[in-house]
Amino acid sequence: MINKQVLNYANSNQSRFVNELAKFVRFPSVSSQPQHKDDLHRCAVWLAGHLRKIGLERVRVSSTPRHPIVYGEWRNAPGGPTVLIYGHYDVQPADPLHEWRTPPFEPTLRGDHLYGRGASDDKGQLFCHVKALEAYLRTTGRLPVNVICLFEGEEEIGSTNLLPFVERHRKDLAADTAVISDTRILGPDRPAITHALRGSLSLELVVSGPRQDLHSGSFGGAVLNPIQALCEILARLHQPNGSIAIPGMYQDVKAWGSQERAYMKSVGASDNQILRDAGVTQSWGEERFSLYERTTLRPALTINGITGGHQGPGGKGIIPARASAKISFRLSPKQHPDRVERLFRHYINCWKPAGIQIQIKKFFGSSPTILSRNHPMMRAAALAYEHGFKAKPVFLRSGGTIPVVNIFQDILKVPTVLMGFALPDDRMHAPNERFNIGIFHRGICTCVWFYDILGRMNLGSNRYPSESW
Amino acid sequence: MINKQVLNYANSNQSRFVNELAKFVRFPSVSSQPQHKDDLHRCAVWLAGHLRKIGLERVRVSSTPRHPIVYGEWRNAPGGPTVLIYGHYDVQPADPLHEWRTPPFEPTLRGDHLYGRGASDDKGQLFCHVKALEAYLRTTGRLPVNVICLFEGEEEIGSTNLLPFVERHRKDLAADTAVISDTRILGPDRPAITHALRGSLSLELVVSGPRQDLHSGSFGGAVLNPIQALCEILARLHQPNGSIAIPGMYQDVKAWGSQERAYMKSVGASDNQILRDAGVTQSWGEERFSLYERTTLRPALTINGITGGHQGPGGKGIIPARASAKISFRLSPKQHPDRVERLFRHYINCWKPAGIQIQIKKFFGSSPTILSRNHPMMRAAALAYEHGFKAKPVFLRSGGTIPVVNIFQDILKVPTVLMGFALPDDRMHAPNERFNIGIFHRGICTCVWFYDILGRMNLGSNRYPSESW
Repeated sequence: MINKQVLNYANSNQSRFVNELAKFVRFPSVSSQPQHKDDLHRCAVWLAGHLRKIGLERVRVSSTPRHPIVYGEWRNAPGGPTVLIYGHYDVQPADPLHEWRTPPFEPTLRGDHLYGRGASDDKGQLFCHVKALEAYLRTTGRLPVNVICLFEGEEEIGSTNLLPFVERHRKDLAADTAVISDTRILGPDRPAITHALRGSLSLELVVSGPRQDLHSGSFGGAVLNPIQALCEILARLHQPNGSIAIPGMYQDVKAWGSQERAYMKSVGASDNQILRDAGVTQSWGEERFSLYERTTLRPALTINGITGGHQGPGGKGIIPARASAKISFRLSPKQHPDRVERLFRHYINCWKPAGIQIQIKKFFGSSPTILSRNHPMMRAAALAYEHGFKAKPVFLRSGGTIPVVNIFQDILKVPTVLMGFALPDDRMHAPNERFNIGIFHRGICTCVWFYDILGRMNLGSNRYPSESW
Repeated sequence: MINKQVLNYANSNQSRFVNELAKFVRFPSVSSQPQHKDDLHRCAVWLAGHLRKIGLERVRVSSTPRHPIVYGEWRNAPGGPTVLIYGHYDVQPADPLHEWRTPPFEPTLRGDHLYGRGASDDKGQLFCHVKALEAYLRTTGRLPVNVICLFEGEEEIGSTNLLPFVERHRKDLAADTAVISDTRILGPDRPAITHALRGSLSLELVVSGPRQDLHSGSFGGAVLNPIQALCEILARLHQPNGSIAIPGMYQDVKAWGSQERAYMKSVGASDNQILRDAGVTQSWGEERFSLYERTTLRPALTINGITGGHQGPGGKGIIPARASAKISFRLSPKQHPDRVERLFRHYINCWKPAGIQIQIKKFFGSSPTILSRNHPMMRAAALAYEHGFKAKPVFLRSGGTIPVVNIFQDILKVPTVLMGFALPDDRMHAPNERFNIGIFHRGICTCVWFYDILGRMNLGSNRYPSESW
């Protein structure tokens, strides 16, 4: 049975752990913004130092063409299973800055929450594992399983350099299972394991017209306005019923049986809950699906940003030279980002008005993924939650995307368990992101239990293939 | 006949005049941007000093709630007519900055042009009058007419504080005619007098959805995206044939006779010329009208700027909290901005989807204006051009708006002659704005002749009513 010392250590060090997490959050490790390149490096070096301090071995900061990868291991449990722990230390941009109650990179404890960009996504959740490992190593001097830590700095920008790294270090990364904590649970007492993720495809659409901005008095009514052309194109991306208007978009979208939809209804968030989480009163989209289904089983197309012409205060009488929009797809199981990209490009080109140029840039794409609920690793994770949260977890689908799950499945042939600790109102990607410090503690205890249970499982040399869905 | 000394003075001081204009252009007097408030004040003080130096009297810098008005006069021609010379020392924003070959507020002489924001619109054109006055005062010691100079700092933002100023100083500003140089001619040897201006209406449309940015993975497909709602609304503003889709929009738009259209065709810019000026190869808009007609006789609706969601590099997985667009109408004769604003608000509210809020802010509006080609002041101006440019001017309509023309007509009951000196490729409102220094000199000579001709006209105490069209 589990060594009580380990849990006691986690209990008695709670406030120190929060302070350490605050130090981690303080790094403005915004991977998409070139001006933060050094901050990512400093954050990686700090994290590596932390892993060394708690007793991991062969700790390294590996540089990549963009942001470094932090690696560490502990392989002193011969015959025991090997767990690949993945997390990411990079964060989303903090804008709009003026909406933050306290600055995004000055982590602040208010009530039961630590506020700061990345507090929940993913620094806090990553830290649940790090602190569980520390609790073992500082008390028993060992871990119940072999462990590999792989923490990257490019998750928010598509994990571009992780793929070649994993390919190059295939042997070092060989494991029985991967575990990632970067998903949501339903509430403080309602743990959940995410077993399906939507894929994603992120693009930019640039519309160019006149070589330079034109006076709208002199030319208004005679020259096509790139903003207008862009808006007309974007307005054609959806049908009035909320579905995506691109022909062929739903060809690979699976039709789900009544059993699956009933299970989803019983465990998933209600429409009201999702509206509350979003802070809106009105839903939108495909009427014949619940909001939970719309955000997990169905594809979505979102305009993430738009810009063009005069951006300052007041008016300015111009026809601008160009306008652009950032667009992302969320893909439902069986959809492939390359195919969706082709459909999108074809559709846009069909609608291109004369007199403007259109450029489509691709930022990244990744396929949807899924892991069977009956997989032994899933059962181990479920049991760990029961101990850590004193409640049985449910199995959820997530509307988000974790591209690394694809990489582990395709290159390392290992299944990934998504053991999330984020609350629905943690405001991931939004201003005033936060992490609940009670959940932080429960997350650490759940990880302690997870490693304990895995260590007692009779794995031998089996590999569990990722099951089909 | 005209005093040759005056023209000789203008000839022999050409290069000094260009240097002085460069000093004027160097002030970043961007009226729409609060950070330039002090620059506008410094520019006004400099301009007032310049008026004093050349011999104007009662020169004052009058503060307003926003940017000051520069006033000066010379009233020593008893029995002669009084000319109100209007100009504006404020300029458009300079963005996008990276498209300027030399910085917008570091005026640079390249070839035959002085480059800089405001070089043509309106500092260079305003200066044609100032230098003509100087040429008289420094040679003959007097002017052939009484003169009032009124130079404001809010033309590019709707001349908001000019109206109360003119109302308050009605007596000081009493004149026989107003003259403004803030319009275009057809080419270096093709002078033109603008006798009709479109009205304008400048608005901002703000669409708000969720209280804060949402994760597009978690909520994409279930929550209406304000950018999408905005694009769908903006896409509904035009018909596929290029006309404005707002019901009632064309109710007050005058139908023009074949005679007027034939005159316009004979003197106005050809479609090719307008396309060349715009630097585009493809026209857009209402097929049954020439481009000149589309930009002068017909109303136009232009989206001047749009913004929402992620603005930085790379992708960001969000549904943004809000999006906004800046929109301006150009109004054809007989349209009224208040009525058009009502039609616009009504139309937008009809299309407002559930789950978002829409706010419409008005920046400013002004009615279209026109002055008969047979008006004596018009004939005086035409003769002045014949002397200054050695070519007969044609009468043009402009697609732009000069709100002060309405103010002079409504409050002071004086007609305004639009004696422009801008070339079509001066790039007003756009990057690399410039003013042709040959035209600068011809403009000064034309103003010298204009004052001379007016001084010799027998005006008595007549007021020329602004004729109806």
